[in-house]
Amino acid sequence: MKQIQLLILVFALISGNIAVAQTEKVVEDFKPSEVNQIGKEYPQVNSEGRVRVQIEAPEANNVQLDIGAVKYDLTKDENGVWIGESAPQDEGFHYYQLNIDGASVPDPGSRYFYGASRWGSGIEIPAHDQDFYALKNVPHGQVRELQYYSEVQESMRRCFVYTPPGYEKNVEKRYPVLYLQHGGGENETGWSNQGRVNLIMDNLLAEGQVKPFIIVMDNGSWYRPRDQRPAPRDTTEKRTWPPKGWADGFMNVLLKDVIPMIDANFRTIADQENRAMAGLSMGGMQTRIITLNNPDVFSHVGMFSGGSISVEDVENAEGFKENIKLVFISYGSKELENPRPGPWGDPKENTNALKEYGMNTHFYVSPETAHEWQSWRRSFYQFAPLLFTE
Amino acid sequence: MKQIQLLILVFALISGNIAVAQTEKVVEDFKPSEVNQIGKEYPQVNSEGRVRVQIEAPEANNVQLDIGAVKYDLTKDENGVWIGESAPQDEGFHYYQLNIDGASVPDPGSRYFYGASRWGSGIEIPAHDQDFYALKNVPHGQVRELQYYSEVQESMRRCFVYTPPGYEKNVEKRYPVLYLQHGGGENETGWSNQGRVNLIMDNLLAEGQVKPFIIVMDNGSWYRPRDQRPAPRDTTEKRTWPPKGWADGFMNVLLKDVIPMIDANFRTIADQENRAMAGLSMGGMQTRIITLNNPDVFSHVGMFSGGSISVEDVENAEGFKENIKLVFISYGSKELENPRPGPWGDPKENTNALKEYGMNTHFYVSPETAHEWQSWRRSFYQFAPLLFTE
Repeated sequence: MKQIQLLILVFALISGNIAVAQTEKVVEDFKPSEVNQIGKEYPQVNSEGRVRVQIEAPEANNVQLDIGAVKYDLTKDENGVWIGESAPQDEGFHYYQLNIDGASVPDPGSRYFYGASRWGSGIEIPAHDQDFYALKNVPHGQVRELQYYSEVQESMRRCFVYTPPGYEKNVEKRYPVLYLQHGGGENETGWSNQGRVNLIMDNLLAEGQVKPFIIVMDNGSWYRPRDQRPAPRDTTEKRTWPPKGWADGFMNVLLKDVIPMIDANFRTIADQENRAMAGLSMGGMQTRIITLNNPDVFSHVGMFSGGSISVEDVENAEGFKENIKLVFISYGSKELENPRPGPWGDPKENTNALKEYGMNTHFYVSPETAHEWQSWRRSFYQFAPLLFTE
Repeated sequence: MKQIQLLILVFALISGNIAVAQTEKVVEDFKPSEVNQIGKEYPQVNSEGRVRVQIEAPEANNVQLDIGAVKYDLTKDENGVWIGESAPQDEGFHYYQLNIDGASVPDPGSRYFYGASRWGSGIEIPAHDQDFYALKNVPHGQVRELQYYSEVQESMRRCFVYTPPGYEKNVEKRYPVLYLQHGGGENETGWSNQGRVNLIMDNLLAEGQVKPFIIVMDNGSWYRPRDQRPAPRDTTEKRTWPPKGWADGFMNVLLKDVIPMIDANFRTIADQENRAMAGLSMGGMQTRIITLNNPDVFSHVGMFSGGSISVEDVENAEGFKENIKLVFISYGSKELENPRPGPWGDPKENTNALKEYGMNTHFYVSPETAHEWQSWRRSFYQFAPLLFTE
């Protein structure tokens, strides 16, 4: 019986379906989060990385802060204001939400970010290395919202394009392009909103550490009407992941719609040597499949917390070894401590083997972070200076 | 005593502090709102323009839909899901929120828009004339996010810039510029998010009804640290509105930072004849003061639900009569039925008098709309073809 209770407790902890009451001593140096809405005092963050929220809900019975897959009970004061805080969080950006009498809602104090398949609250835990993605008085590029027609989907789509500072003035200059993808449950807004990729580029450029290039951020999620979904898997088949054809939808849009549209409307250098693809998590897995299948289209490959590429993959991908100039693989250190099950083997071993096999590989580990945006900001910061350097 | 009760009722209705139970017959043809988050079935709108929301909140005691300054009680089903709808709303865009046991929060089903000094829920009531702001397969311009340094504020600021289709390709062509301001409690995202000004321009351009121009959307709100706020008003002084100096902060930023930055970074025609200013509500009032004081900087003036310009104003503004080519004034019809108190007299009479005085004026009334975005979308649609036509 005790074993069953323990099992239930472990399951509840893993699944985040448990409310944790804070009992530890909390350092009282909370400040408003950097990504609060203007004029809002809460949410706040302290030097330990705890998140404190506050919301007026005089008639509520139960209000919780839901962050990092853990729900923390808040307490109500005499004015009907609920307040409470989380355990310390990793440095960087995190999604969270409030739970008011069973309703999961955004915190009205925070700005909103698209992740976990919804617009929801976000918070910034100040990081020891936050300077590389800070907004500074340096020359800034532009982030442009584009509406374009997709022949593949027969509908309008949206993407964001970063152009580096000087793009407007140097009207003769042409630029390489990086196609940069978000993760599962995120969208084309992720890399500039949560990832601050425009600020990272502006800062890298200001320090002369990177060649200027254009960044295209499209939506890699693939919504299929129910009647167009594939038949259930044949269970006698050997199980592979991702299933065959998993990235075909976005691959078609990228190759047939997005790249031609970008090359037609921006001053790109429209060849393989000057075209890179990278992505985080699901976007990394898409990058893997799309670049293995199209080494004549892309020359530089980045996968952040999204698997790796093995020697066997390359041996089965004609032209990949000869044409690809960089394979960059990264993870957050906490992802490697407790490996996520993946179909492609150990990422570090794979990447080392690929180097011995004769390819230019880089393996980067973001210190003390997990499957989260701080890992991906740092990954981009490491990856960008390696692009288009020849 | 009855009079007092009636007075309380009227006050409660006006201030929105009353819950209204729906008793009328509701037409059951609800569809998800066009600005829902992807995959979300609620909120919905029916052919009467009623808004129906739904939220799971099994432990809640009281959930309300708060829209148009009225709170509507929802009812809970056996699964803990709350549902209910509003009275019919005007065509077009509206802000709203949910109230869960006293907590005012965004609806997790809707997309979010900045208004009422916070990021909150928005909904679209399909309009009979919605075609002019619909997303179509026509050539599209770009909406660009810019970070720039303000010498006036000694800090970084953000603005959005619409460039028309073809701007990237016609690299010799130069364009006029419209500076277009949001209303009170809104910000630099309003005109493209709620206003859809980019789509209105794309559609007008596709039909050849407007000259291509650049649109700059900056933040006209003026946050001053508490210690920099002016001393309390001298009550012996004659009361005027807006108070002297009210628009100075934004006027300085616009003239000293924004316009030079735009002229330096975009292919503008950088002269008075090719520079316009317009705004809605607070942005219209700012447009009034800024253009009356700077008729050497701007040539075309638009004020949407933001007051009007009298002959007396013009007589006191040197150079205004000679240099200004257009004064465009507009309101929603419901604003005129029940005039908002304003310090500048009847807008239609003022505008007619200004025409008789010898200026080129236009007065437009948006049918069946109030102080809301549908009035301002229509106003822009009427205003844009009148710009830079000589």
